[in-house]
This record gives sequence, C-alpha cells and structure tokens, in this order.
Amino acid sequence: MTEVRKIILEDHEMPTQWYNLAADIDVPPYMSPEGAVPPEAWAPVFPMNLVEQEYSKERWIDIPEGVQELLKLWRPSPLHRAFNLEKALGTPAKIYYKNESVSPAGSHKPNTAVAQAWYNKKFGIKKLTTETGAGQWGSALSFACALVDLECKVFMVRISFDQKPFRKLMMQTWGGRCVASPSQETKAGRAMLEKDPDTPGSLGMAISEAIEAAVTDPTGETRYSLGSVTNFVCLHQTIIGLETKKQLKKAGIKKPDIIIGCAGGGSNFAGLSFPFVYDKIHGADIEIIPVEPYSCPTLTKGPYVYDHGDSAKMVPLVAMFSLGHNFVPPPIHAGGLRYHGMSPLVSKAVIDGLMTPKALHQLECYKAGLLFAKTEGIIPAPETTHAIAEAIIQAKKAKEEGKEKVIVFNFSGHGLMDLAGYDKYLAGQLSDYKLPDETIRENLKEIEDYPKPQY
Amino acid sequence: MTEVRKIILEDHEMPTQWYNLAADIDVPPYMSPEGAVPPEAWAPVFPMNLVEQEYSKERWIDIPEGVQELLKLWRPSPLHRAFNLEKALGTPAKIYYKNESVSPAGSHKPNTAVAQAWYNKKFGIKKLTTETGAGQWGSALSFACALVDLECKVFMVRISFDQKPFRKLMMQTWGGRCVASPSQETKAGRAMLEKDPDTPGSLGMAISEAIEAAVTDPTGETRYSLGSVTNFVCLHQTIIGLETKKQLKKAGIKKPDIIIGCAGGGSNFAGLSFPFVYDKIHGADIEIIPVEPYSCPTLTKGPYVYDHGDSAKMVPLVAMFSLGHNFVPPPIHAGGLRYHGMSPLVSKAVIDGLMTPKALHQLECYKAGLLFAKTEGIIPAPETTHAIAEAIIQAKKAKEEGKEKVIVFNFSGHGLMDLAGYDKYLAGQLSDYKLPDETIRENLKEIEDYPKPQY
Repeated sequence: MTEVRKIILEDHEMPTQWYNLAADIDVPPYMSPEGAVPPEAWAPVFPMNLVEQEYSKERWIDIPEGVQELLKLWRPSPLHRAFNLEKALGTPAKIYYKNESVSPAGSHKPNTAVAQAWYNKKFGIKKLTTETGAGQWGSALSFACALVDLECKVFMVRISFDQKPFRKLMMQTWGGRCVASPSQETKAGRAMLEKDPDTPGSLGMAISEAIEAAVTDPTGETRYSLGSVTNFVCLHQTIIGLETKKQLKKAGIKKPDIIIGCAGGGSNFAGLSFPFVYDKIHGADIEIIPVEPYSCPTLTKGPYVYDHGDSAKMVPLVAMFSLGHNFVPPPIHAGGLRYHGMSPLVSKAVIDGLMTPKALHQLECYKAGLLFAKTEGIIPAPETTHAIAEAIIQAKKAKEEGKEKVIVFNFSGHGLMDLAGYDKYLAGQLSDYKLPDETIRENLKEIEDYPKPQY
Repeated sequence: MTEVRKIILEDHEMPTQWYNLAADIDVPPYMSPEGAVPPEAWAPVFPMNLVEQEYSKERWIDIPEGVQELLKLWRPSPLHRAFNLEKALGTPAKIYYKNESVSPAGSHKPNTAVAQAWYNKKFGIKKLTTETGAGQWGSALSFACALVDLECKVFMVRISFDQKPFRKLMMQTWGGRCVASPSQETKAGRAMLEKDPDTPGSLGMAISEAIEAAVTDPTGETRYSLGSVTNFVCLHQTIIGLETKKQLKKAGIKKPDIIIGCAGGGSNFAGLSFPFVYDKIHGADIEIIPVEPYSCPTLTKGPYVYDHGDSAKMVPLVAMFSLGHNFVPPPIHAGGLRYHGMSPLVSKAVIDGLMTPKALHQLECYKAGLLFAKTEGIIPAPETTHAIAEAIIQAKKAKEEGKEKVIVFNFSGHGLMDLAGYDKYLAGQLSDYKLPDETIRENLKEIEDYPKPQY
C-alpha cells in the first residue's frame, strides 16, 4: 500500500468556530486625530456585524451556518504530504502543504469573501466595493457576491488591469464589474490621475477609491470590502490553520516544527499561522515564518509605526509595519505581496517575538515554484512561490542538520492566471530587485510626526 | 447541522483496478488493407504494455502502484451535491457532479496522462509526442511527463495555439514543448501547409503530425500519446465512475437515474459512464447521455462506419461514428468537442442501445455554465457546460414530472483558461451553428468505399 499523500476532512469535520488572535495579544487601537477610533466610526465603511468582529476580544467566534454552507462548496481543503518534493531535495524533513488552490477562485481569498458577503447581505447591504492588486481578491469577492446575490464593483490597480485581462474576465463571469484604478469614477481617483496621468496605480490608491465609492453612495446600501489586513479578515482565514491542525493530528504529527506562509497584507499567512501562534503562546516550540519579497520588505525593513492603510488617508491610522502609505512598489509578478503595510495582528505578533519574518528574491522563488510544479504538479501563484522557496530552504537546513523536521506551508493559490510571469522567468527576462534603504527612509518622512504605537 | 455537500474518499479508498468495458461489449477490430490490425503493428506508435491494454478483454485491470501514487497527487476527486443549483432550478431532482477540475491541469485528462507517462517510462521510452486541440490534453501530458521525467512535444491545432497563448505557457512551465500544427517539422505538416497555408488546423491534422514525429524518430525511444478515443484511454478514465459509485453509495444513493457527460473523443464521458454501463448491461435502469455540440454532431448525425482517426490516414481504420476524417470543424469555443470521430467503445455502446446521445447549441451551454458559476461557484470549461446544460434540462424535466431523480454529471474541467469564450458570450458575440447535413454528406464521400463494421 502506498503512503497517504493527502489528509482530508469530511464536511462535518470542518471547524465551526474561528480563532481570534486578538484575544491573546494586545494590538494598539486604530487612531484618528480625535484619538482611538470607536466602532461606530466604521459604520459607513463596514456593516456593524463585521465591525463587531473587528473589535472582538472573544477567543472563539462561531461560524454562522450560512457561511459554513458557502465554505463547504470547496472546504475543507486537503493537506498534502509533498513526498515528491522531499525526494527531489533528499531531505529527512516531512513537508506538508495546505492546498488553498482548490477554491473556485483558485486561492485562499474566498474564505473571507464568502463570510463578508454573507454578513453584508444579512445587514441589508445591496452592493460591495473593493480594490484588487493582482486580481485574486477581486475575483474572490465577485465569486462570493454571485453566491449571495450582491452587486460587486472592483477597483483594480491599473498595471495589473492592463497586464492581466483574464482576471477582469473572471470577475465579469461571476457578475462583478471591474475598473482600472486610478479611475475617473471617484474624487480620489481623479486627483491621482491629475497628479500623474500615467501612474501604474497602487493598492493604496485603489483602496481609497473603493472606500470613497462605498461611503458616498447616497442610498446608504453600499459598503466596502477588504481582502486582507483587518482583524476580521485574519479571523475568517484561521479556518486554514484550524483544519491543518486536525489534519496533522490525523497524520500522527503532534506538532509541526516550522510554519511558513507568504505575506502581503498578511491574510493567508495569518490564516495558517494564528492557530499555531496560540500554541506557541502556550509554550509550543514552533518557528513561524512570514515570507515577503525583497522588493516590498514591509516586515523585514519597515518600522512598526502608525500609518494609513491607503494613499488618500481615508483610513484611520493603523499600528503596523509600513513602508509608507505613498509607497508605489516595483512591478514584480507577485502582485499580492506589494502592499506597503501589514495586518496589525501579524505586525504585533512579530513585535511580540512570536514570528520571524524573512525576505526572499523573486528569482529564487520562481525557481522553487518550477521545482514544485514538476514534482508535486500544481503550478503555484507567484505569491505562493515565496512560501515554497522558504520551505525548501528549511528542508535543506534540516538535511544539513540531519533532523526529521515537520515543515508546513500554505499553498495559498495556483498560478494558472499568472503564467506570463513564468514565461518571463524561463526566458531570463526577470531580475532581482532589493528596495534601497534610502527609498524607504524617503517614503517614511511623511509619517515622521504621526503618533507612535504604545505597547 | 448542514447537509453534506461533498462526498469525499480517503487515499486508501481510491479504486485499485480499472474497469474495461471491452470485456462486456464487442467492438469491431481496427482494420488495415491487410485485414484486422494485430497488436504488434502498433509497436512503433505505442509501448507494448499499453497496446496490451488496448486489446485486453479482461474486465478488471490492476492500477500499478506507481500510477496510483501519481493519481493520489489529486485523487480521489470530490463528488459534490449541487444544492445551490437545485435550489435555483426549484427541482426535486438530486444533482451530483464529479469534480475533475481539481487536478493540477484543471481537467480529467491527467487521469490517463500520468498512466501513459508511467507505462512509457517503464517501457524505456524517453520522449512522448502528442496533439492537442483546446490545450487541455497537451497541458495534462506535459504535467505527467514532468512527474516521471520524460520529454514531451505537443502539436497544437493552430487556431487554438493563436487564440490561447496561456495554454502554451502552461505546457512550457511543466517543461513541455508546444508547436502550432500544421508545422514545418513533419512531412504531413508541410504537405498540409502547401495545400492550404492559412488552415486553422484540426485535431486530425495534429494527430498525423504527432504520430509521424514519434514513428520517424531514429533513436526508437519516442512514442505517441493520445488523450482520448482509444480503449486504454477510456480504461484509465474509468476511475472517475468507479469513485463516483463508491461516493453515491456513501451518500445513500442505490443507483443514479441519469448519467451525463460531454463527448468529444469520448474519454471523460467514458470515464464516468462505463462503470454504470456495466450496471445497465446487468439490468439497472439508468439513462446514459453523451452530449455533443450541434456544430460537431458526431454521435447524433454521423454514421457508424470505418474511418481514419487522423486526416493523413496514418492511423488504421476505426469502427466508430464519424463525420469524415477531413472534417474541419467550425471554431466554436468548446475546442475539446471538435473531433470528427468518437471512441470505438462509446460508439459501439451507442449502437448497442446502452446510451442516448444528444446535441446542444453553444448559447444554451454558456447560459448553463454561467448559472453554474453563480450558484456552485466553479467556472466550467466550455466543454463541461454541455454536460451542465443537459443536467439542467433533465432537472427541469424531473420537476415537470414531479420525480426525485438522481442526476450525476461529470464536471470534466474548469474554464479558467477559457475565459475569452465567456467574454464573447456576455458581449453577445456568439451565435449558434448547426452543421448542415449536406456538409456531412460531402465529408463522408471519401470513405464511401471503406469496409463497413460488422456486428
């Protein structure tokens, strides 16, 4: 008999509660010039049932049955043992990957998209606006809105909009409307275009437009939806790690040694890691590694500061690692890892010494992605290759040390919509880029006088 | 507790034998001018271990452990209950779909691709050649060859090669080499280009090129690989139906009432249906429906004849339904359903009254595909929409009749690489096309004098 390659869970084994890390670590509050931002202030932006989650200190939050039903369209997702990759590396390490690419949108993003769509629908909302970088999030929200019958409008960073026409088609197929950002449709967008008509756009700019489009809708029936960063997004994603724990137990693994995820805004990483952070807080010896690109090294090079999540400063100040809200990242292919900020929960967990962030170069990541595709079969999203590359580094280290370590990484999405990146890599047209310290210092000047997070 | 939406199988529940329908129905032999083609004649084309399968009358054939290991990278695949679709239709029918889109290549094609790659490798072969229409098969074989370390060369029908550049990138990422067919690389290709330099190509042409490239390799270490039609391909695909049977049993379903699959060369349809054909032969009351497009109505309009599987007549005569080996189908989007012929096993099962073929128009199919995407979430491949459309027709019929029928269809693949078709459909740029009887008669003139299948 062959060894078990996939550990699966039945529908009824899917977790029925999310884990809220905010119950176990202290995060400085959102700030406005008037001081800490109260929940009510978010009312025009998010429905209050989600705002409640954002501020909750409850450790366990029930997943409503309606959300469970939506999640079960593709969840629980499989946990794979990467036997072929292990063999190719000749490592004694056991490598597991949680396969979030099986969702209809091809990534982990639908985990929070269906939850947010469901809560908004329940709150009486008719339409959601959002932004998207590489397009993973915009696709996921369009998918989720189709399921619960909400309108969906997506502001897509212009450079991605132009480079990835199929992402737009994907959103459109599910009924979402996608426009390039900056656009003429918002005040913020028009101002940005006036300043720089040829701007490639940025996630910060697109967020500003999406929020404006939501809060200025005179019907009051539109809200904004965010695919990463906030506490409730991280909360919804914890189903990844909670399933993984059950699956490791089934595989006879008492505890993993290393947990790895790529980190842009932090949501897929948070999803896998937070339930293990809980164990670490309670004494478990686990190395937890968020991986980011050298071209957008938020956690490894940015300071822990108060900064805005968007470039038009419509969002209150967030205590997080940041490269500055006006940072326009270089156009690397891992579009989902180009955000200037980072989830406040992930940021604080790093400050608290619960995680060890790491930056990698894109050529090494593409090389790892190709090795994965040729051994385990799935072509990874460019973002996901960062997690794979680090898993390979750790597996080689385990080989040197002769240790049978258990390495678990999040396979956050497949790369079928991102093949142009592989094409360029194979043609030798990609190069590495390290963001100069000088650029980071320059970007951060604007926020020098902001308050500093107290902890 | 919510109802079970996905019936899954553990790795150890994956079937360990394939079902061979050739044990239960009689198919007329392959013919050459010298009479029935003996197994040895195929030696330059296929490795003998696969030829043996092609001629086997054994009912159950063991799946080698090596093949099982490869299949377990993504199999067993889930069987979903389409609750949301049922609700949208208000039907009392229970609709199930077998989700073959979860494979790394996104379709059912890898089921036979990994088996063929494994058998070729075992036989000492170093390189495989093949053809591909829409690109599903070329991608699947490139994927499989990467896993067992074989070279792979794919002749892709020119019109698809031009329309679907991302398919080429997908093959390339797995290490496959993809060229447009007709090409300058073969005698057959050059002859076709001389005759018509602007030909869009056809699957029949590409098959001729791929076979020539295999049999003329002076090293003798190259063989040809086929993604549909032959008996061994259908055999490898039966894992779909065998898993489905186990899953229906788990769901408490004694027997399905209706089995549906789209049919191009017949492989995904055979895969789901053959294990149920076995039951039907043994008395079970099951309606088994292969669905094809009106623009390429092989089973519904073609005669059951001896014809060549390729346009250059390199392949011996096959007893099958055919529109004529020189048929160049109109460029509909379901590229995988544009083959002039049909699997000899499927063809004979139709002749024997075990199946009821049906043709549908592409607009109805796209409409069904969109409804599926907005209810069940996954965007279907254009080919797959044919199965969905028929499932919807049957579910509506069940509603009219007030019967709680169990309908099972094969979700053969996702449409993430085929979004341009949805774009055109949504923009109102697609129309229906029914192949005129006159064109079919014209195409068939060339084979008038061929021997007729005896049965």
